[in-house]
Amino acid sequence: MKRYSIILGNLGNTCDRFLSSGYKESLDKDVMLDQAASIDGVSGIELVGTWDVTKETAAAMKKKLASRKLRCSSIIPDLFSQKRWGKGSLSSADAAIRAQALDEMKAAVDMAHEMECDMLTVWPGQDGYDYCLAADYMEERQWLVDSVATSAAYAKQKGVRLALEYKMKEPRTHSYLARAADTLLVAVESGMDNVGVAIDTGHAFLAYENVGESIAILSRAKKLYHMHFNDNYSSWDDDMIVGSVRLVEYFEMMFWLEKTGYSGWYSMDQYPYREDGAAAVRSSVLFVQRMQAILERVGRPAVETLIKKRDPVAVAAFIREHLVAR
Amino acid sequence: MKRYSIILGNLGNTCDRFLSSGYKESLDKDVMLDQAASIDGVSGIELVGTWDVTKETAAAMKKKLASRKLRCSSIIPDLFSQKRWGKGSLSSADAAIRAQALDEMKAAVDMAHEMECDMLTVWPGQDGYDYCLAADYMEERQWLVDSVATSAAYAKQKGVRLALEYKMKEPRTHSYLARAADTLLVAVESGMDNVGVAIDTGHAFLAYENVGESIAILSRAKKLYHMHFNDNYSSWDDDMIVGSVRLVEYFEMMFWLEKTGYSGWYSMDQYPYREDGAAAVRSSVLFVQRMQAILERVGRPAVETLIKKRDPVAVAAFIREHLVAR
Amino acid sequence: MKRYSIILGNLGNTCDRFLSSGYKESLDKDVMLDQAASIDGVSGIELVGTWDVTKETAAAMKKKLASRKLRCSSIIPDLFSQKRWGKGSLSSADAAIRAQALDEMKAAVDMAHEMECDMLTVWPGQDGYDYCLAADYMEERQWLVDSVATSAAYAKQKGVRLALEYKMKEPRTHSYLARAADTLLVAVESGMDNVGVAIDTGHAFLAYENVGESIAILSRAKKLYHMHFNDNYSSWDDDMIVGSVRLVEYFEMMFWLEKTGYSGWYSMDQYPYREDGAAAVRSSVLFVQRMQAILERVGRPAVETLIKKRDPVAVAAFIREHLVAR
Amino acid sequence: MKRYSIILGNLGNTCDRFLSSGYKESLDKDVMLDQAASIDGVSGIELVGTWDVTKETAAAMKKKLASRKLRCSSIIPDLFSQKRWGKGSLSSADAAIRAQALDEMKAAVDMAHEMECDMLTVWPGQDGYDYCLAADYMEERQWLVDSVATSAAYAKQKGVRLALEYKMKEPRTHSYLARAADTLLVAVESGMDNVGVAIDTGHAFLAYENVGESIAILSRAKKLYHMHFNDNYSSWDDDMIVGSVRLVEYFEMMFWLEKTGYSGWYSMDQYPYREDGAAAVRSSVLFVQRMQAILERVGRPAVETLIKKRDPVAVAAFIREHLVAR
Repeated sequence: MKRYSIILGNLGNTCDRFLSSGYKESLDKDVMLDQAASIDGVSGIELVGTWDVTKETAAAMKKKLASRKLRCSSIIPDLFSQKRWGKGSLSSADAAIRAQALDEMKAAVDMAHEMECDMLTVWPGQDGYDYCLAADYMEERQWLVDSVATSAAYAKQKGVRLALEYKMKEPRTHSYLARAADTLLVAVESGMDNVGVAIDTGHAFLAYENVGESIAILSRAKKLYHMHFNDNYSSWDDDMIVGSVRLVEYFEMMFWLEKTGYSGWYSMDQYPYREDGAAAVRSSVLFVQRMQAILERVGRPAVETLIKKRDPVAVAAFIREHLVAR
Repeated sequence: MKRYSIILGNLGNTCDRFLSSGYKESLDKDVMLDQAASIDGVSGIELVGTWDVTKETAAAMKKKLASRKLRCSSIIPDLFSQKRWGKGSLSSADAAIRAQALDEMKAAVDMAHEMECDMLTVWPGQDGYDYCLAADYMEERQWLVDSVATSAAYAKQKGVRLALEYKMKEPRTHSYLARAADTLLVAVESGMDNVGVAIDTGHAFLAYENVGESIAILSRAKKLYHMHFNDNYSSWDDDMIVGSVRLVEYFEMMFWLEKTGYSGWYSMDQYPYREDGAAAVRSSVLFVQRMQAILERVGRPAVETLIKKRDPVAVAAFIREHLVAR
Repeated sequence: MKRYSIILGNLGNTCDRFLSSGYKESLDKDVMLDQAASIDGVSGIELVGTWDVTKETAAAMKKKLASRKLRCSSIIPDLFSQKRWGKGSLSSADAAIRAQALDEMKAAVDMAHEMECDMLTVWPGQDGYDYCLAADYMEERQWLVDSVATSAAYAKQKGVRLALEYKMKEPRTHSYLARAADTLLVAVESGMDNVGVAIDTGHAFLAYENVGESIAILSRAKKLYHMHFNDNYSSWDDDMIVGSVRLVEYFEMMFWLEKTGYSGWYSMDQYPYREDGAAAVRSSVLFVQRMQAILERVGRPAVETLIKKRDPVAVAAFIREHLVAR
Repeated sequence: MKRYSIILGNLGNTCDRFLSSGYKESLDKDVMLDQAASIDGVSGIELVGTWDVTKETAAAMKKKLASRKLRCSSIIPDLFSQKRWGKGSLSSADAAIRAQALDEMKAAVDMAHEMECDMLTVWPGQDGYDYCLAADYMEERQWLVDSVATSAAYAKQKGVRLALEYKMKEPRTHSYLARAADTLLVAVESGMDNVGVAIDTGHAFLAYENVGESIAILSRAKKLYHMHFNDNYSSWDDDMIVGSVRLVEYFEMMFWLEKTGYSGWYSMDQYPYREDGAAAVRSSVLFVQRMQAILERVGRPAVETLIKKRDPVAVAAFIREHLVAR
């Protein structure tokens, strides 16, 4: 039985650099929670620290979730939406900022623990650089590794794991956690067995990764901890409804997640700027479930047989036979 | 009734810069013609001038096609595969080369006329530039327009139309016929009413065009003459089997081709480097036919209704309801 | 003598979707004007309607500019930063919104007239679409052309020209004014002789255009009205300091602007999220001036000779000889 | 004292998929060697196994090089230009092909040893896949690691190191050695201390890597073995003259190579399709030497000071002061 999750903020108002007040009206969090609870099959909610939950409100939020038969699937520490993180958080050149980022991580661990959630999704989006000759890549990478290691040691005591989420760029032109393999290297270098990687499908597409292969690479190292789903047009993190552009890649992901024994969440992560948020997220869940239903019907052995053929013509026949409507 | 076509050379051996002898063994042209004839629904063959047919062999080729119930859907003048075109053909800075390119165009027109084919697909792939400061963009564009106009005047006498095929890059880093709109400008500037544009879906994807919109833009000007189909990963002309990566974009194209009254060929253009050529091309035909069958079943009015909603959530529902298998 | 300009908002606070309150503190407009005036060689200011100036404040702003020996180089109508434009402005499917967008255009024309400025830079950034099957490309393009024509007729009476600024994407995944050539088509279709095109160098890079060539294409049609300068990493509108990534392309632009007799503004358009805004914009002005100084020293004939050679090796020698420091 | 090298084949004829006979006439190898020797500062030659040298001709080639005061800087085993490698070499699903690839590797090691060259540049360009659902990523990655380990063990006995060269795509749509970090993972997984990574600057640009950072990441692991230089337009391996597009990134690389104590070759790798090969390669050498001369003049401490500022405005001032001509 797959576990589906959504990021609470996806249901609310979303803005961009041109329309900073957002494209829609802001929604009350309780309404958003009701909406989340109404999506068939969704049992988990990812919460952004500070935005959605604080140390003070964690217990109350846990109850709100429980009353809707939801649980917290992951806490995302806010390392990106505050002015102080503007030039970096876990790898900031300012030791005081790094210390604050560690505090933010620990607070998020505490919240997770309080909410009986065993995972942080760590996206240090401001950690990177924009211009050449404006960063010391070795020094900053070391700070990043050290901060991850320190956070992970604290998290381990509380039974919490860290899933490092990579994204090649945005908001920086270059992020330190950029692709699957370099993020795996950071996880390994941290020396902690509770540090792994989160794949956001859109971030992987942006980096020209084939997600099926990224799943395989991370699974070889037993480091695939979390999955975020969305779609895009390959060159930017458009955060669209799953299945709006691609088809085959999603089906292939389902196969590799199954084959590698992935037991984590299938979590939706979108920016439905102009659409009804709940409906957009529900659409993604339904698409992912469809892919899984097809995989179940076809059966993993049939797909194994297909991939062993290593034949694009056979793949095309499979697509027409099993993935596309008649 | 849609008319399907393939490019004969797609069935044969294909090479790249690393394996110039090609990935497969070369096939006899008669075998290739037999294979083409065996693909259900295919009634047209695009031939590359010089490669596939010459003035001398045109009559014989016409018979070979007729005996297989095939006709020539288009002649592609060879403006790209000879050393003399290496730095340009129709827009070459060398007047002698431009003259030779005009001869090549006229010869292709003659062949088309001889074979009762009313279309040239003109892809001047070597016309462009690789480096900054190494071309006079105004002068060369004028030569290009002049060459197109001259060729078109000749072609008009023979009842032949010219479909200018654009592609943003390759083999040059920058082509003069790069995108739908700039190619439309050249067609218009030529001042000839038998000059239009050919969309190669993969070339359009490479330029980040949405093909549905490109069809609309060209149709507004009554200048969409020809369609080439293939798929790719958005950043290069991978020339893959249709439907290997994308789904929704192909369905949308079918709708816009219908809506705008496109009556030309649906021609496959691929580079099945390592696959069985005939099977790979057949796979594309089957995918395009599937999209058309779905459109027919759903009906154009339903799609009209959908696009008027301008709602991505409704699109997602449509995809799950009509495009993806259950 | 070149005329340099900057966009006033570039000096202030800038935000993105993750940090909607902006990376810096907001600056007082008078301080920003003082900063602008302090940049050597800058004599023009682009103002965004509503943000920077309204009908009510236009006269006062004109005085503020004059007192600093500045003039308004262009007004940018705000067609992008208000919730009502979220799904489009000039091409909105909602006739009431289109009417409001026309009002916004007229108000901007009035402001320009009031300020003795003869140019609007029109960037309808919300006009486009995000998903397939969620727009009627023909209908919306017609609305766009009609709105441009109507606005242009009004502007003409006031002696104001419209420079349509294109950008392939963002904030929509696909914009209607996407590339140089399609925007030129809209300008031409409007049937008005006071409608032209603005090139933003970063937008052109994003579309894989070579700006030198885009200048040539637009100049052939006498439709290049305005220039925005910034730099980026090719796949997104990073809005960086000019010359942070590229060198040769900027030099080539200066040559083509000279050669085609461009007499408009050289206006900087950046998003210095984390940097000192005034210093970042000044850096761009200095870089553009450097390119122009080199062109002046080398002389246009020498560059003409170079481009006629059509030889990358000669270009490389030129770069080492004239563009790169020793 | 830096050691410069070129790839011999870059001086000869080069082809692409449209002009398989190549854009130029083929050159005699002795002439190419003479040309190579004539490029100031070049003391090394990279040879492609089979193309340029075989077991039988290694001794003779060594003499030819020595007589021109050249040495072999690296052997590139031919794992890409033969039909048998079309679907993979070191990771082929066909055990017989893998065995042949190991033989090719061993032969290249023997040649290197014979020529007193201590490095293979290993680019398994055909190892990857083109379509989804047509490869077993786990199995094939394991074969790749095993083949590398086996080859490395053999090479170690002969005092030869393996530099694995990555490239995101081409000739496959997806390569197994795709980016710096995943290739480092393979090097580490091989368990051999004579396996490292080669950066080709163009391949890194194509993957949106900042080469300065890639150097830092690989150097942290003491795994940067080799450097190939060329330039491109970011989205394809255009293999252009160094410095034709970019400036600052090359300067930054020089700094990081110095700072991390890189002592390997600075080797040029281009495809001068339409240019004079020797002149094009010489142009690249001259550009790299210019960057190094500037770094020497400015001094590493000044650059260290700059990067510690982490300020794009300071970078822009540095560019105007030290990198761009006055």
